[in-house]
Amino acid sequence: MKFVAEINVMPQKEILDPQGKAVKLGLHNLGIDSVDNVRIGKHITLEVEAESQKAAEEQVEIACKKLLANIIMEEFSFVVTAV
Amino acid sequence: MKFVAEINVMPQKEILDPQGKAVKLGLHNLGIDSVDNVRIGKHITLEVEAESQKAAEEQVEIACKKLLANIIMEEFSFVVTAV
Repeated sequence: MKFVAEINVMPQKEILDPQGKAVKLGLHNLGIDSVDNVRIGKHITLEVEAESQKAAEEQVEIACKKLLANIIMEEFSFVVTAV
Repeated sequence: MKFVAEINVMPQKEILDPQGKAVKLGLHNLGIDSVDNVRIGKHITLEVEAESQKAAEEQVEIACKKLLANIIMEEFSFVVTAV
């Protein structure tokens, strides 16, 4: 069975996000000054071939921990759906 | 009212994603060879102060078009929720 995973990798809440800060300033400079607390991370989509939803989720969790996220500084979340 | 926007900015489907290709190879090298079609984009969260859901969505749409996404090469989607 084929599954699609949608993964978000974000800097942990306690960690400063200088890229987000820069983007917030950029938006204010463009006149969009109602935004605050901008945080920027990665959005990853991938297809997984697995026997079950659970097996697919396990694969994605391993992929996140081993490669996609730096768990010292980042946190990840994902949704796996069958296609 | 305060709203939180969750924004995804992804490379357009027709456009090659070398970063995604590199990550796919990396995953295969780690033994996770059931994954395919990896695509990598940005995930942005921000808070918007606006009078209504509609006004908040308009602000976010403008922010995406003006700064967050390069609409020549990228597509964006977002969800705005009241907090």
